[in-house]
Amino acid sequence: MPPAVRDRFADAPFLRACRGEAAAHKPVWFMRQAGRALPEYRALREKAGMFEMIRTPELAVEATLQPVRRYGVDAAILFSDIVVPVEAIGIRIELKPGVGPVIDQPFRTAADVERLRPIEPEADIPYVIETVRALVGELDVPLIGFAGAPFTVASYLVEGGPSRDHARTKALMHEDPATWHALVDALADMALATLRAQVEAGASAIQLFDSWAGALNPDDYRQHVLPASSRIFAGLADLGVPRIHFGVATGELLPLLAEAGADVVGVDWRVPLRAARSRVPAGVALQGNLDPAICLADWPVVEAEARKVLASNGEHPGHVFNLGHGVLPDTDPDTLARLVELVHSSP
Amino acid sequence: MPPAVRDRFADAPFLRACRGEAAAHKPVWFMRQAGRALPEYRALREKAGMFEMIRTPELAVEATLQPVRRYGVDAAILFSDIVVPVEAIGIRIELKPGVGPVIDQPFRTAADVERLRPIEPEADIPYVIETVRALVGELDVPLIGFAGAPFTVASYLVEGGPSRDHARTKALMHEDPATWHALVDALADMALATLRAQVEAGASAIQLFDSWAGALNPDDYRQHVLPASSRIFAGLADLGVPRIHFGVATGELLPLLAEAGADVVGVDWRVPLRAARSRVPAGVALQGNLDPAICLADWPVVEAEARKVLASNGEHPGHVFNLGHGVLPDTDPDTLARLVELVHSSP
Repeated sequence: MPPAVRDRFADAPFLRACRGEAAAHKPVWFMRQAGRALPEYRALREKAGMFEMIRTPELAVEATLQPVRRYGVDAAILFSDIVVPVEAIGIRIELKPGVGPVIDQPFRTAADVERLRPIEPEADIPYVIETVRALVGELDVPLIGFAGAPFTVASYLVEGGPSRDHARTKALMHEDPATWHALVDALADMALATLRAQVEAGASAIQLFDSWAGALNPDDYRQHVLPASSRIFAGLADLGVPRIHFGVATGELLPLLAEAGADVVGVDWRVPLRAARSRVPAGVALQGNLDPAICLADWPVVEAEARKVLASNGEHPGHVFNLGHGVLPDTDPDTLARLVELVHSSP
Repeated sequence: MPPAVRDRFADAPFLRACRGEAAAHKPVWFMRQAGRALPEYRALREKAGMFEMIRTPELAVEATLQPVRRYGVDAAILFSDIVVPVEAIGIRIELKPGVGPVIDQPFRTAADVERLRPIEPEADIPYVIETVRALVGELDVPLIGFAGAPFTVASYLVEGGPSRDHARTKALMHEDPATWHALVDALADMALATLRAQVEAGASAIQLFDSWAGALNPDDYRQHVLPASSRIFAGLADLGVPRIHFGVATGELLPLLAEAGADVVGVDWRVPLRAARSRVPAGVALQGNLDPAICLADWPVVEAEARKVLASNGEHPGHVFNLGHGVLPDTDPDTLARLVELVHSSP
């Protein structure tokens, strides 16, 4: 991270909370804060497809800034997608609206792993770097860079798209561990390179999305996923930025998500923060965890449930308020704006 | 339960394990053991739709018996569906293949709750009673009766079908608790009546399926679901049959699933049995918890993972082997047959 950026955001509440330090106010941002819940985003998307948006820094910058303007959140998150790096090195992927990433030729064998090659961010995803640089010039809050974690990206590649049960992925993992580990190692290298490039271009923190890791039991996670994800976190240590690790339905995995090397562990809505705190080391901060489905209810309900999240965290300074998963498309933006006010005014 | 049935199955390994007693061998059955994984089931289904199968005792008996013959499991489970009682009292529901129950007019208001009325099993679902009676005459293993739990059935009624986020259900629960509680109370009464009727007709155990309860955090479960489900378990106590309580992604809810009054708590594959054991009272048995996705892998993988489940349970007699959720349609029946042999031969 350029020293000027570091200095500018030294006391940003989001970064202080990630480090477990008391801040001027409780910080908040929302996973998928950029996106379909915003009419101004839907207007942008009428002009361009997802990949086109991501590849056009002007559009990606605008999509990243929209929720910051609208909600007054304490962090921006780069507008991109977890499959961007693999698509950029030649894997054919379609982002189907309402479905998710669909892979033209799913990965099934050792030969498929050969279709991956190391990513060179300046050459392969120059638009991402350019978007980050442009954003850092405009933002008055820290920017979060991100990447998909090896397991979650591998699941898309192996299943060929979103999956309910991840059965092919689990079969590959167990039937052919050598191929599996080659696959997640290659994806870990790509995630690490893209995250380093984002931080070097000015991102103040990173989040590794292992959204579907909660489909695994702790033994499988420890043996078949943790080593690759740990390598990413270790490879970022010298950069000195907070590293957030997130997944859904990870109640049993919280200690392992921390053990992988995270400074902040994302918690979904199923686990009260009080309970989550007892599953990670004392120095690890938490992010979460209002149920995104609750944000579709009337404001008094949202307010009451948000206060429960705040109460469950108690006085601990190491807490970044967020939803337990991404903003649902039908969410009223006004609800999220009021939620930011509520969190900011909390003691 | 007729005394003759009780005597016949007094030492059945399945029932002994449910009671926490040592048995001649470790018992095993599979959720969704009757169904699409079996070619003989698909042959039956060529002749009849789901509701037609359920309403025709001859066909429902055959579908229930098929997996018992094929796999040698230690329990049969009635071939039916959790929406049968609400459909039987006049709620229009379609069972869409590959989708699930779809409700013609979703429930949204207090007036909708009036569309429910108490169920009279002998009059409203005589075919279920008749199927149970016929099965008890033919089976040499205990029959499990079942019902959908109020939350899970309410979610189908409110959402209008299967839901990823249960947002409307959660909104109703929080915005209009009086209507919500009227809804789940009515559904609890229906579940209780149908379960009592199944036991009186000869079922030796019951399972309450709260498949989607894991979408709730513990506070919401305790306040908005537990009272209704507890009433069902309490209302079955005098019948003296084991009561199993199951849901998916319920790691945080296991103590509450037991507290509701279960003798056996179903555990999905995310929570090692060793950990699950520490979350329920000593007298409560566990059921589970091999990942159904693992059953699509090669046999050596299935064997290794099944042995891990057995090891995680250790020597505790209160364990019924099962999957952590239902059999996936692509499962090879031979895998399940070998799994039964493996479990039966385990020490």
